Amino acid sequence: MSKQTVGKKVTASKSKKNVYFFGGEKADGNGSMKNLLGGKGANLAEMAGHPKLKIPVPAGFTVTTDVCTAYYKNKGKYPQGLTEEVNKAMKKVENVMGKKFGDAQNPLLVSVRSGARQSMPGMMETVLNVGLTTKTIDGIIKKSGNERFVYDAYRRLITMYSDVVMEKAAGIEVREGKGIRQQLEKLLEQKKEERGVKLDTDLSAEDLKDLCDNYKKKIKQVLGKEFPDDHEKQLWGGIGAVFSSWNGKRAISYRKIENIPQEWGTAVNVQAMVFGNMGDKSATGVAFTRNPGNGDNNFYGEYLINAQGEDVVAGTRTPAPINKNSQSDHNKHELMLEDFLPRVYKQLNGIQKKLEKHYRDMQDIEFTIEDGELYLLQTRVGKRNGPAAVKMAVDMVNEKLITKKEAVMRVKPSQLDELLHPIIDPDVEKTKKALAKGLPAGPGGAIGRIVFDSESSVEWAKNGKDVILVREETNPEDVEGMRAAQAILTTRGGMTSHAALVARGWGKCCVVGCSELEIDYTKKTAKMGDVTLKEGDWITLNGTKGLVFKDVLPMIDATKENKTLNAFLKICDAVRTMKIRTNADTPEDAQRARDFGAEGIGLFRTEHMFYGVGSEEPLFKLRKMILSDSVEDRKAALDELFPFVKTDIKGTLKAMVGLPVTIRLLDPPLHEFVPHQTEQLKELAKSLNVGMPNLEKRVALLKESNPMMGHRGVRLGITYPEITEMQVRAILEATAELIKENKKVLPEIMIPVVGTDKEIDNQKVIITRVKSEVLKKYNLKKLPLMIGTMIEIPRAALTAGKIAKETEFFSFGTNDLTQMSYGFSRDDMGGFLAPYLDKDILAGDPFQSLDTEGVGQLITMGIDRGRKVKPKLKIGICGEHGGDPNSILFCYKAGMDYVSCSPFRVPIARLAAAQATIMA
Amino acid sequence: MSKQTVGKKVTASKSKKNVYFFGGEKADGNGSMKNLLGGKGANLAEMAGHPKLKIPVPAGFTVTTDVCTAYYKNKGKYPQGLTEEVNKAMKKVENVMGKKFGDAQNPLLVSVRSGARQSMPGMMETVLNVGLTTKTIDGIIKKSGNERFVYDAYRRLITMYSDVVMEKAAGIEVREGKGIRQQLEKLLEQKKEERGVKLDTDLSAEDLKDLCDNYKKKIKQVLGKEFPDDHEKQLWGGIGAVFSSWNGKRAISYRKIENIPQEWGTAVNVQAMVFGNMGDKSATGVAFTRNPGNGDNNFYGEYLINAQGEDVVAGTRTPAPINKNSQSDHNKHELMLEDFLPRVYKQLNGIQKKLEKHYRDMQDIEFTIEDGELYLLQTRVGKRNGPAAVKMAVDMVNEKLITKKEAVMRVKPSQLDELLHPIIDPDVEKTKKALAKGLPAGPGGAIGRIVFDSESSVEWAKNGKDVILVREETNPEDVEGMRAAQAILTTRGGMTSHAALVARGWGKCCVVGCSELEIDYTKKTAKMGDVTLKEGDWITLNGTKGLVFKDVLPMIDATKENKTLNAFLKICDAVRTMKIRTNADTPEDAQRARDFGAEGIGLFRTEHMFYGVGSEEPLFKLRKMILSDSVEDRKAALDELFPFVKTDIKGTLKAMVGLPVTIRLLDPPLHEFVPHQTEQLKELAKSLNVGMPNLEKRVALLKESNPMMGHRGVRLGITYPEITEMQVRAILEATAELIKENKKVLPEIMIPVVGTDKEIDNQKVIITRVKSEVLKKYNLKKLPLMIGTMIEIPRAALTAGKIAKETEFFSFGTNDLTQMSYGFSRDDMGGFLAPYLDKDILAGDPFQSLDTEGVGQLITMGIDRGRKVKPKLKIGICGEHGGDPNSILFCYKAGMDYVSCSPFRVPIARLAAAQATIMA
Repeated sequence: MSKQTVGKKVTASKSKKNVYFFGGEKADGNGSMKNLLGGKGANLAEMAGHPKLKIPVPAGFTVTTDVCTAYYKNKGKYPQGLTEEVNKAMKKVENVMGKKFGDAQNPLLVSVRSGARQSMPGMMETVLNVGLTTKTIDGIIKKSGNERFVYDAYRRLITMYSDVVMEKAAGIEVREGKGIRQQLEKLLEQKKEERGVKLDTDLSAEDLKDLCDNYKKKIKQVLGKEFPDDHEKQLWGGIGAVFSSWNGKRAISYRKIENIPQEWGTAVNVQAMVFGNMGDKSATGVAFTRNPGNGDNNFYGEYLINAQGEDVVAGTRTPAPINKNSQSDHNKHELMLEDFLPRVYKQLNGIQKKLEKHYRDMQDIEFTIEDGELYLLQTRVGKRNGPAAVKMAVDMVNEKLITKKEAVMRVKPSQLDELLHPIIDPDVEKTKKALAKGLPAGPGGAIGRIVFDSESSVEWAKNGKDVILVREETNPEDVEGMRAAQAILTTRGGMTSHAALVARGWGKCCVVGCSELEIDYTKKTAKMGDVTLKEGDWITLNGTKGLVFKDVLPMIDATKENKTLNAFLKICDAVRTMKIRTNADTPEDAQRARDFGAEGIGLFRTEHMFYGVGSEEPLFKLRKMILSDSVEDRKAALDELFPFVKTDIKGTLKAMVGLPVTIRLLDPPLHEFVPHQTEQLKELAKSLNVGMPNLEKRVALLKESNPMMGHRGVRLGITYPEITEMQVRAILEATAELIKENKKVLPEIMIPVVGTDKEIDNQKVIITRVKSEVLKKYNLKKLPLMIGTMIEIPRAALTAGKIAKETEFFSFGTNDLTQMSYGFSRDDMGGFLAPYLDKDILAGDPFQSLDTEGVGQLITMGIDRGRKVKPKLKIGICGEHGGDPNSILFCYKAGMDYVSCSPFRVPIARLAAAQATIMA
Repeated sequence: MSKQTVGKKVTASKSKKNVYFFGGEKADGNGSMKNLLGGKGANLAEMAGHPKLKIPVPAGFTVTTDVCTAYYKNKGKYPQGLTEEVNKAMKKVENVMGKKFGDAQNPLLVSVRSGARQSMPGMMETVLNVGLTTKTIDGIIKKSGNERFVYDAYRRLITMYSDVVMEKAAGIEVREGKGIRQQLEKLLEQKKEERGVKLDTDLSAEDLKDLCDNYKKKIKQVLGKEFPDDHEKQLWGGIGAVFSSWNGKRAISYRKIENIPQEWGTAVNVQAMVFGNMGDKSATGVAFTRNPGNGDNNFYGEYLINAQGEDVVAGTRTPAPINKNSQSDHNKHELMLEDFLPRVYKQLNGIQKKLEKHYRDMQDIEFTIEDGELYLLQTRVGKRNGPAAVKMAVDMVNEKLITKKEAVMRVKPSQLDELLHPIIDPDVEKTKKALAKGLPAGPGGAIGRIVFDSESSVEWAKNGKDVILVREETNPEDVEGMRAAQAILTTRGGMTSHAALVARGWGKCCVVGCSELEIDYTKKTAKMGDVTLKEGDWITLNGTKGLVFKDVLPMIDATKENKTLNAFLKICDAVRTMKIRTNADTPEDAQRARDFGAEGIGLFRTEHMFYGVGSEEPLFKLRKMILSDSVEDRKAALDELFPFVKTDIKGTLKAMVGLPVTIRLLDPPLHEFVPHQTEQLKELAKSLNVGMPNLEKRVALLKESNPMMGHRGVRLGITYPEITEMQVRAILEATAELIKENKKVLPEIMIPVVGTDKEIDNQKVIITRVKSEVLKKYNLKKLPLMIGTMIEIPRAALTAGKIAKETEFFSFGTNDLTQMSYGFSRDDMGGFLAPYLDKDILAGDPFQSLDTEGVGQLITMGIDRGRKVKPKLKIGICGEHGGDPNSILFCYKAGMDYVSCSPFRVPIARLAAAQATIMA
């Protein structure tokens, strides 16, 4: 809204309606008038006045946001006629509630609350119990029969009013801790001391009455003004305070962060107070239209007789169930509302049904029963856990309450995650203090005994022991131990360190970068703060939050909920248009991902077969190849390696029959595969029949200063064409043999680390030659094969037009692309990530969620330029971001055909991709 | 020219002129008709026919390129009437030359040569001596009185004709080495063996005559056709062969590389043969209108009496000087042309003057005197060395022969380089074989004794010995030894390795990445191929070409030519619009760069003061700071460091009074400064009063996997704000003190390794605070200070709009930008650069000359986006590319305000920037 428009409205507001009444099954406004009435005001109007609702809310009225704008425009003056409008509305409220504002016998008390277009929780002021004066107080006491309650309400009014209206709204500046509220609270403490009690509730009516007098004296003394003993003064003071709180410091900075325009203004809601503690036919409660814990379609709630909302929250009394469905072990002996006040329960049950039907989602409702009269205080969309969210979404589609698209938007990706991993029982977890905190690298919870090396992990696991592998950091030599462990905990490394990547690939619980943890390998101890654990001690990890706990914590396993989950994911699939592939390196991973719904492999890393999974033979042969110092020796070693690679690829292609499989040619710098320990080197030297000094020299030659930008990817294929040749032959022979078995296989060769189209030209010559040789060998006319490249070097994105000419698909390798675009080495980022996050320089870890502002530009540029040359170019993403919902949304908007992620992220990606279709 | 146009021309060519005559001071065409007559034909027409030239060239005619196009269009048929036109033109040639084509008594011989629009040297065919038949041969023998010469010419005609016309143009495919030319040459060899002679020239007339007969028989036998004994047949065969050579394989692939359109076609030049070996009044020679060795404005040349052009080239006879200016020690006793044929010399001298004036550049002319008659065969722009190019450019401006802009374009940047460094005497160098070849990392030549470590280098140099430091690679600890050495030679590293960067910064000769060199540090030997050198042995380096020679080679030092050089650079400055700054780290470097014409410092690296130059104290204090493990310790260490940094900066600001100085905040990862040797570490531990295990642990913590993308640049300033604070205070206090001394200083603080504007926000808070503190301390109202950033992270270029909001200048750090855009670690690129260049994947080292296609996009993007937000944003480049002419051209086109390069590159940058103004 431009200032011009605001100005116009102000002028117009003289003749316009400034006050909107609601209550008694009527309302001047409705739910669509949020801009004018604020969120709260519009919702109250909707509940009270909508013909299908007619819900009994405490009557009240809303002073519009336009009045707020005019108030600021005219330096604190209200529009003409506002007083009359307010008075008129108040009359209506009195009629509905059967009470009178300022009346000595049957006084109406009201609350004065803010209510902006968009919720700004806790940012603006509220005054409750307005209307309590020396004139009205006795009337209330008589009506409620509870003097203590009334003086407590009075005390609260005085505190709030003096703070909010008399001090803050008046613009009085105070020193830290010297505000009127703090001074009054000091009096309260003094009183408690005097009486020798601990809790406010232990003070008697007399004590509170006395306190109220002292409060008023203190106010006069500190602020130089009397607390107003007039209901009208209180009302207008409250309204003014709410308006002025719109421009409080906290509110302004909140709006800056949330991008809420300053000129929107807030509305003021004046509403009759109702009390659940007005006697034995009064009560207060909270209910959900469905069970928020498991999603069952049952009305569910708790309540307390003769109590206020805050008593429910305080937890000093055990709330009772509203009905049988709400019974649990610890409340089943309490009186159910259904039995206590059957008529009111029936009314409430009718209301909840109407509300859910009207708002088409599970509602969280607050109600108060004042002397047998039911009032709805609030209804809003109810919070729910993951399993409940999924179940409700599926049920509501079946009930035809919501559309599939709506169902998709009802489940957060993080909620889905809860269904995919066992988790620590949250009720227990919240009572425990974590020993240490690291980065949440692999989701879910895990329990196990500490071991400090890979060998022990394997051995203990063989003996049936659950272990957690604790290391400073991991490397490919630890992979067997990592696989054997229930979870992995490291002191160093970030979200994309070796440990994190491997664990996520397996869906395994993992905490990395836990810098508080000090490991002593020789003593086999792990120190976290004051606690020192030794080998064999039990710990529990929360890999979703990155927490480490001592001992065994109980676990909840929701992963069995597969029927509902699958139904939900089918709904997602119906909405989704982007394909989901997986990153898988073994036939088992491929099968698992397929079970999770993967529609192909987006990244098969040829090198992963060498990471010590299963036989050591391929790794040994690879090392032999790497440390060859002549083309002949290297070719001989490659020949030995060939059958292993071919078998591996064949197995995966077979597991993915009918679906595309993107196979990336050898990517990492070769020295990654060279053993690090002298002992292992010696062994290798012996087996290779080479002297140690010679071998050490060759190893040294492979060392690089910045291996991420070194001799890797296609650069290896160009300097050692025989390596490319061996891999391509393995892929194509595997394909040919499967075709001969009448299996439909769709291999895609992906060339990594490409920076210029000429690198692809070079490799395509080899691929073409090998292809024709394989066709001949197997006597075939054609082989299905696509050739594409990873776009992971910024230059590749910049020159994507040229590269597209030479390729049939692009797969964005956003890990490397992020590394190079940002100049952040993911292995070293630990050194500065924490301060970068603390100082708000980064909004988050760019390796977790794509940096759409920077790296994203290279992606859209790459896609646009590639498709300009080749409109049907197939484009996807592989790497960590492919499983991150925000990044998936970006990928969808950018026009990708698919995302690829680790098998365990596939369900989440299916959801995120469906949501992207709706949000984009 | 579109195909459409070509088609029209073909149709039109029936009535159009197809043949253009030249000779006898007349010509149908002129120099502007290159498209129609080809380069050679147009030039011959210009020389012969231009009213101010009228040069005696052997008469001839040109068959146009349109005929060639028509020839291909019509499948080898010539346009109608071509024969008549050729015959008519031949008549004119006969008239001018006083000979008759095919005449038995006084026959005219002609050459048939190609001549395309753009020169394609060696790609097309030539036939000489056309017109020699059994009918004409005796006439020529009689005229020349030299039977041997005539049969030799005949032998050549037969060889060329059979090869070019009868075999190639006829489309006969032959196996490698089995062509008719090779078979004829075998006969020649046999004849020499038979005669027991070694050289062709030792064969007699009779031998040659016999050989011609054998040739003809062989041709008949191999090709099944007779060698044509008819002058007309020979002529048309030659013309056809030239046209068909336009579509030879070599010519086609040459045109592809050079982007020459296939449809241009070639012209054919038929020109009378003249012979400098036609007797004692005949001669042949080559001359230059000015001295190409030093640029003096003197006619300069050599000639041989009774000889052909090839005799001059062969070097079997010593050519004589044409005049006194052309005399040298080894030819001063020969007869000068000026004395031998004074009339002809006078004519030649007149012609050279006309030619230089007409073409407005020094000409390289070929002339032949046939029986006292002077003919100019060719004139073209003469090649010259660097000093000559500079002198001629300056002189010609003074003579008002050329404009300043033309002068600027007359000197190649590489030629200027010759004036800036001593070089190995090229005459001697070409006779020597290099021991090994590396990368040319620091230009010029150097002589010295081998030493293998920095300490020896310093010590030997102290004793007055010239040394060359030979290392596997260098690091900051070697800097003192590098400075003491005449030159540096390393086995590893690329053009931007430590050794290369440091050496270029000093203008020191340096060869790096010399992989053939094997060093044995313990034995103190260096092995290159079969040669093993030991400490103290002499070697000579050519740093411009990357060559290593044994022993001492003589040097030439042209660096003294300062008067002419300065005059030339002043001309450049008059043309140039882009500023030239320098990368300098010390007051001495700054002064030197200023002397070379630098207009400010574009990059002052604060960290370079720690690279062991001068006192070790700052480095020690820096190490103390780095290895502190608390903020307090670090601050204390920074306090100790402060006076050193301030003094250093103050000195440089002072040396650059009146000019801007860009000071980059600490950039490299901290562990770069930590000593590598245990001994040094122990020393440090002792001085720091820390136990070795503790120190080693801290050092290990600083290690990074990919330090280039690690904890460096602004990331240090954010994690350790106290480091930024110390540096900023040093800069501003130095500034304040100089201002108090009434010196105009213009510091610019540059924040490195920025990836997001928020990093700048963060650092600016510190800078602003320190500035106000310094203002207060020195009681000043203002301090001149610009704040800017390096754009060296791709993301910074992509988000340059946001970054520009926070900054006053950008300096492109293209070293890092290239590393990250291409994903090439410059320290590791050695592993694949050579195959990448060999396989044409890279056109050159992208760290040497900017990759304009990829990295260049980020630069233009950064500039465009930055200037969109801040139109007056100052933009420059620092880093290696700032001294590379091609990159400078790119920077100019991209709109940069300045380039910054090492002091020794400043003159070259001044030239390149001037050329950019003209070329852009």
